[in-house]
Amino acid sequence: MDELAIEVVADPDLEDPVLIEGLPGVGHVGALAADHLLEELDEQATLVRRIYSRAFPPQVSVEDGVASLTHTEVHAVSVPDARDMLVFTGDHQAQHGDGHYTLASAFLDVADEFDVSECYALGGVPTGELIDEYDVIGAVTDASMIDPLEDVGVEFRPDEPAGGIVGISGLLLGLGVQRGFEATCLMGETSGYLVDPKSARALLLVLESLLGFEISYESLDDRADDLEDVIGKIQEMESQAAMDVPSDDDLRYIG
Amino acid sequence: MDELAIEVVADPDLEDPVLIEGLPGVGHVGALAADHLLEELDEQATLVRRIYSRAFPPQVSVEDGVASLTHTEVHAVSVPDARDMLVFTGDHQAQHGDGHYTLASAFLDVADEFDVSECYALGGVPTGELIDEYDVIGAVTDASMIDPLEDVGVEFRPDEPAGGIVGISGLLLGLGVQRGFEATCLMGETSGYLVDPKSARALLLVLESLLGFEISYESLDDRADDLEDVIGKIQEMESQAAMDVPSDDDLRYIG
Amino acid sequence: MDELAIEVVADPDLEDPVLIEGLPGVGHVGALAADHLLEELDEQATLVRRIYSRAFPPQVSVEDGVASLTHTEVHAVSVPDARDMLVFTGDHQAQHGDGHYTLASAFLDVADEFDVSECYALGGVPTGELIDEYDVIGAVTDASMIDPLEDVGVEFRPDEPAGGIVGISGLLLGLGVQRGFEATCLMGETSGYLVDPKSARALLLVLESLLGFEISYESLDDRADDLEDVIGKIQEMESQAAMDVPSDDDLRYIG
Amino acid sequence: MDELAIEVVADPDLEDPVLIEGLPGVGHVGALAADHLLEELDEQATLVRRIYSRAFPPQVSVEDGVASLTHTEVHAVSVPDARDMLVFTGDHQAQHGDGHYTLASAFLDVADEFDVSECYALGGVPTGELIDEYDVIGAVTDASMIDPLEDVGVEFRPDEPAGGIVGISGLLLGLGVQRGFEATCLMGETSGYLVDPKSARALLLVLESLLGFEISYESLDDRADDLEDVIGKIQEMESQAAMDVPSDDDLRYIG
Repeated sequence: MDELAIEVVADPDLEDPVLIEGLPGVGHVGALAADHLLEELDEQATLVRRIYSRAFPPQVSVEDGVASLTHTEVHAVSVPDARDMLVFTGDHQAQHGDGHYTLASAFLDVADEFDVSECYALGGVPTGELIDEYDVIGAVTDASMIDPLEDVGVEFRPDEPAGGIVGISGLLLGLGVQRGFEATCLMGETSGYLVDPKSARALLLVLESLLGFEISYESLDDRADDLEDVIGKIQEMESQAAMDVPSDDDLRYIG
Repeated sequence: MDELAIEVVADPDLEDPVLIEGLPGVGHVGALAADHLLEELDEQATLVRRIYSRAFPPQVSVEDGVASLTHTEVHAVSVPDARDMLVFTGDHQAQHGDGHYTLASAFLDVADEFDVSECYALGGVPTGELIDEYDVIGAVTDASMIDPLEDVGVEFRPDEPAGGIVGISGLLLGLGVQRGFEATCLMGETSGYLVDPKSARALLLVLESLLGFEISYESLDDRADDLEDVIGKIQEMESQAAMDVPSDDDLRYIG
Repeated sequence: MDELAIEVVADPDLEDPVLIEGLPGVGHVGALAADHLLEELDEQATLVRRIYSRAFPPQVSVEDGVASLTHTEVHAVSVPDARDMLVFTGDHQAQHGDGHYTLASAFLDVADEFDVSECYALGGVPTGELIDEYDVIGAVTDASMIDPLEDVGVEFRPDEPAGGIVGISGLLLGLGVQRGFEATCLMGETSGYLVDPKSARALLLVLESLLGFEISYESLDDRADDLEDVIGKIQEMESQAAMDVPSDDDLRYIG
Repeated sequence: MDELAIEVVADPDLEDPVLIEGLPGVGHVGALAADHLLEELDEQATLVRRIYSRAFPPQVSVEDGVASLTHTEVHAVSVPDARDMLVFTGDHQAQHGDGHYTLASAFLDVADEFDVSECYALGGVPTGELIDEYDVIGAVTDASMIDPLEDVGVEFRPDEPAGGIVGISGLLLGLGVQRGFEATCLMGETSGYLVDPKSARALLLVLESLLGFEISYESLDDRADDLEDVIGKIQEMESQAAMDVPSDDDLRYIG
């Protein structure tokens, strides 16, 4: 197998689609959001590409006994009265710096084939503490793109994200602008300690406003409720621990 | 030396042989099984290929003072009334992700030369606890292959192996299916803490049923007995430790 | 994107310019010096090249919401009565050994385009203790270059820097000499524990003498004062700690 | 610079020379031996090649203020009544597996240019305890080479070195045999904790017997004496420590 292999599964006609990328990262926020989007719109979704690469970990996943090589799936999603979408999902990012460049270039190649001009990279931004209000932070490839995003509630802050954006989401912007794409990174605030469905929901609400689709959040809310239970138990343990050895840093050490 | 160098040692005629891969991995199960198979059938085995690669660690092994460069050996094994076999063994897997792809491709190239259509990748699956009954878990490249494997006792479980299959065994399935091979991964359950000859024996019993050969397990049983002694001593130490500081997690920390 | 991409932004005529490199490294000394030089001379500076590379981390930085792919910037600086300069700055060095070679070669390629014959690589040399007098240590590509540098206060010591010079600064000398450049590494002494504007100032004073420009150090001095405050607090904590458990090694453990 | 660059410095006529490699490794034994050999025979030694590679760390060493890019030096040594030698020395091995293959191939290319048929790779083998009698362990590319080496005191032991031979020394054997060289690895026993001139001396005494040169060991003995002093102090500290908390393992933790 070459460094990269793109399998063409289908080639539906799409009208001015947007690229949406949601691979695993901080708080699993981007992946949760893109996976939920596909689950809710699965009747309108068509698998169009499988992207294999040596940059992925050398590994297969196994479902019901059947193995499949690590890859990124690209689904076309066409919903009436909403923008067409090309949704990139998968279990892994590249394993090294050079591979991130290879994959981001491949994603933009697929986007080119479908005449995409706008990209949305989904991710999380770690705050280091539990979140009450789930803000969505934005980064763009051109300052003119900021106003319309602020209109739908995306926040732009002078010094965030402090460490820049690493991995596929960052490169979709960094390489995308060089190839003429308008690219936006939407980052849901998340503690950084836990998989965070609430942050994913905040991302999807922004996307709904931008792209015009409508989905249910029931299953995502169920996962969020399960998370609340976990957090509740952690806080309980914390307050009990606080009675023995006072500390306001305990939560900082949760995986 | 190039990235890959395949030395042709012999080219015997084989009849519809199956590929069997057993390189080091979890509990050393796959390597123990393949090595034992070759030891027991050494009079019917012929070395046919040596596979060298820069993806292996830069190292020689030394036996009786004579050095040999790290490589994978391929033996052809022809036993009357059993399927012919091409057995891949060696001391090392590739050292990085890209190298796993290179080696798996090379293995399948050799398989192609011998008109192989079926591959068996041998490995272990870690359970995190000592095993009473040594089950063999399966993963395949096509759902139609499951039934005949279940008939010889291989188990297929919805969510196992949970983390997928990493390394050469995984890629023989992931790349094999793309090249038209029927590939199966047989994984012996093992604690994951120790080299596990009993798990290797369970794998080989499945292979016997599938391929029709018959071998002795005496030397493997001897190694298993040695292991039992080690486990016995560990448990003894454990129960003594338990009298001081009770804990049922101690075993989790052994090598 | 290829391994390397050099974007031509402008091509001003320069007269016998010198290359000045200041990427992040020990005590951030080289980067502080080059960044300060550009800030002070920004009216005489023109961005001439952007150097992108897969050897950089796969990442964008974000300023006021707008992302830009990690790169090295090259500014041409022309000041009356001073040598013309080509100043290389950026937030990252290469992420692996091979990448350092790629980038150093690219820097020298750009230098060739502008007919550069002299290179100055700026960096810090760690002393392991707080500095009173900020000496600048030199290393050159030819012994004949030592005398004129000693005349402006650069020190050459038989056994320094003990571990050689690692990364882009080292390679500008090591590869530069092979391509006919006269290359000098100027290393400001620094504790190695903290970002060190005083050491950067010492470097710039040497460059002023060598190249004839004149700049203000006010903003660098402000940063140095902030640093002094930090050091003062550390020493205070140290002397208090010394009363409890005497130790003259405490400072060695500051991040 | 390419992956590899070999600079031709001189091309003296040599008569059936042997390759001697002594790069840094366990106990620095191989490097100490080769460096001492060159120092003692410097009047008979001619620098013939410099080998540069991107596989080396991206770094220059600095001597008396003058930088030189990391490389391997090859000296031709011609001593009357002794075998001619090509001695490979330097401060670094390759930084990754693939680079070890690149360098070992390059060394053998240079050997081919000088019609070398025999190679001696020098190294150390760690014993984990302080050494009384400095044995030299051997490994060869063909069993027929063992007897003449045993005649000059080299030991061959069934299971040593247990982990094989890693790095340049191993590959000179592993790749050398494939290219028709007779290659021997001579490994001086050493604790593995300290730079070990006595082990280097033991190696050189074997080489003297094999190749017919004669050198003084005064400077190496001086370094060994310095080492003895260090060991003495360690043992003193150890026995004092033993009075407080008895332990026979302390030495295991020295550097």
